[in-house]
Amino acid sequence: MTTTRALVAPSAGAPFETRTVEHRELRDDDILIDIAFAGICHSDIHQVREEWGPAIFPMVPGHEIAGTVAAVGAGVTGHQVGDRVGVGCMVDSCGECEYCKDGEEQFCTKGAVMTYNGRGYDGEETKGGYAKRVVVSERFAVRIPEGIGLDEAAPLLCAGITTWTPLRRYGVGPGSKVAVVGLGGLGHMAVKLAAALGADVTVLSRTEAKREDARELGATSYAATGDPAVLKGLRNSFDVIVNTVSADLPIRTYLGLLKPMGTLVNVGLPPSAFEVPPGALVGGSRALAGSNIGGIPATQEMLDFCAEHGIGATIETISADEVDAAYDRVVAGDVHYRVVIDTSTLS
Amino acid sequence: MTTTRALVAPSAGAPFETRTVEHRELRDDDILIDIAFAGICHSDIHQVREEWGPAIFPMVPGHEIAGTVAAVGAGVTGHQVGDRVGVGCMVDSCGECEYCKDGEEQFCTKGAVMTYNGRGYDGEETKGGYAKRVVVSERFAVRIPEGIGLDEAAPLLCAGITTWTPLRRYGVGPGSKVAVVGLGGLGHMAVKLAAALGADVTVLSRTEAKREDARELGATSYAATGDPAVLKGLRNSFDVIVNTVSADLPIRTYLGLLKPMGTLVNVGLPPSAFEVPPGALVGGSRALAGSNIGGIPATQEMLDFCAEHGIGATIETISADEVDAAYDRVVAGDVHYRVVIDTSTLS
Repeated sequence: MTTTRALVAPSAGAPFETRTVEHRELRDDDILIDIAFAGICHSDIHQVREEWGPAIFPMVPGHEIAGTVAAVGAGVTGHQVGDRVGVGCMVDSCGECEYCKDGEEQFCTKGAVMTYNGRGYDGEETKGGYAKRVVVSERFAVRIPEGIGLDEAAPLLCAGITTWTPLRRYGVGPGSKVAVVGLGGLGHMAVKLAAALGADVTVLSRTEAKREDARELGATSYAATGDPAVLKGLRNSFDVIVNTVSADLPIRTYLGLLKPMGTLVNVGLPPSAFEVPPGALVGGSRALAGSNIGGIPATQEMLDFCAEHGIGATIETISADEVDAAYDRVVAGDVHYRVVIDTSTLS
Repeated sequence: MTTTRALVAPSAGAPFETRTVEHRELRDDDILIDIAFAGICHSDIHQVREEWGPAIFPMVPGHEIAGTVAAVGAGVTGHQVGDRVGVGCMVDSCGECEYCKDGEEQFCTKGAVMTYNGRGYDGEETKGGYAKRVVVSERFAVRIPEGIGLDEAAPLLCAGITTWTPLRRYGVGPGSKVAVVGLGGLGHMAVKLAAALGADVTVLSRTEAKREDARELGATSYAATGDPAVLKGLRNSFDVIVNTVSADLPIRTYLGLLKPMGTLVNVGLPPSAFEVPPGALVGGSRALAGSNIGGIPATQEMLDFCAEHGIGATIETISADEVDAAYDRVVAGDVHYRVVIDTSTLS
């Protein structure tokens, strides 16, 4: 067994403890990663607090992992010791189904193995990135190009790919008019990526508070949606709307902001069902979509794109003993824009 | 003025009368068409019966027009006397906005001029295809290739393009798994077109009644959806579902029939709002879409494709004095699969 120090949630909602946990010995296709930074995703909090149903405890969360390769299994061909690598939401998939073959491992028909709060195909519980080391199959480690700091790269492994996927799928590029609803961990990445893809980006946020931030992140326009007249003035304006908000939105109004043939894509999970009058879709050939992370090839493509365009997440770095407090700040929406744990502070 | 004999709805819901109506003299860009056949679309009935809000009476319905060019304006370059041509739902648009320039005239920002129950930009009321002749700008007449009868071509101008557009937009081709919900005027065209595009097509219909028809139209599978177990067995099966039904469907169940990254596209207008749990879209990166006819270039592309693949609508031909009765049969869903008026029977 390989051991590592890790932040462990002993039970639902309990404070984190630093413990020593075990990983499997390297299989032929495994790599051992010395983790430098691990991002905090809102979904970590949902799982640690058991808000998404029964979870596996003790839990080591973290699926935004950036570090360097410390050792490789005998059959590893894609990575070498010293390589800068990242791991996102998945650590295994069947590799044989149509989705795996298409590089859409998140839809593996056998069920992709989640980085933590999951079980490998061998039944072993998975442990995530709030730790000094992790063992994963090389197929699920991506290269982090030089030019992106490992700290600002970590959140790209989830927040980055989650927003990259719909932007690419719905053809965002030069000339596209994109709106991003909500300017948090996901929203700020959607703005950066869409702007770098050449789109004209508008941030839709409740109040005026984030106007200047939006501009700095690359948005060309900003609308405070608390005023209904503002939304009315934006009808038929956008090719793509990326909704990163997990609160309920008046979806019919937002569909009306789409240009004909536009798509509103949700990456968050609001609590209530969308009420969609058929005419809101049919009349202007519009679509209401959802999008869920992205596959390994797309994750690599996104990282390469970020390196090329000098993009990383905008982060606050904390030490391991600050994670409990950070969770409360993330829930309060009080971080700009992603919190990253410096795992060297794990004692 | 040009005059023509036409079937006229004198007021909402009143029986048709044969009258002489007037069209404008040919403008430079106009063509005069001798109409051979005009299809009956369910939307004709909605408008004649004023079920879609106030309509313009007396009304000459008909936006599935097939005939031959009888005369051309001085500046016409794209059509000659004797050419076989069709006219669909639109007869004018601004020609200058981004949508017109992209050949998506149905989304013209000035508002496309509908073939009937509309007004031209000059204020003149438009009159449709239940007539012996019609005058339209050559920009809105498409070529009907040799090899498609004018009778079976007429419904392609609406039912054909309405189903062609989403099949193309959502990338249907060889290897695609497509479901068509409802086997009526739109549904039967969706089956023929999707099959000719190389897709594997399943018809979803309430009962077993249309199983043999579906096979003859090109479907490889059929499911009678009145049995809930049948739908359960089709989960995660389709890349694209084309819903041609204008009655309410359990949309969450149907979204569950999509494979990951699949799209359910509506071409009908059910009365109630869709209730869409966000997770039904986000989890599998699925989309719920609508689609509304298609532009002139796509209409030509569809007609050329139909000629190449020997596709026409499956029709029943009636004489002008049978239209009132045919309307009742269309509403009852009792036609296979589109009714076409032989306008030579107009006295």
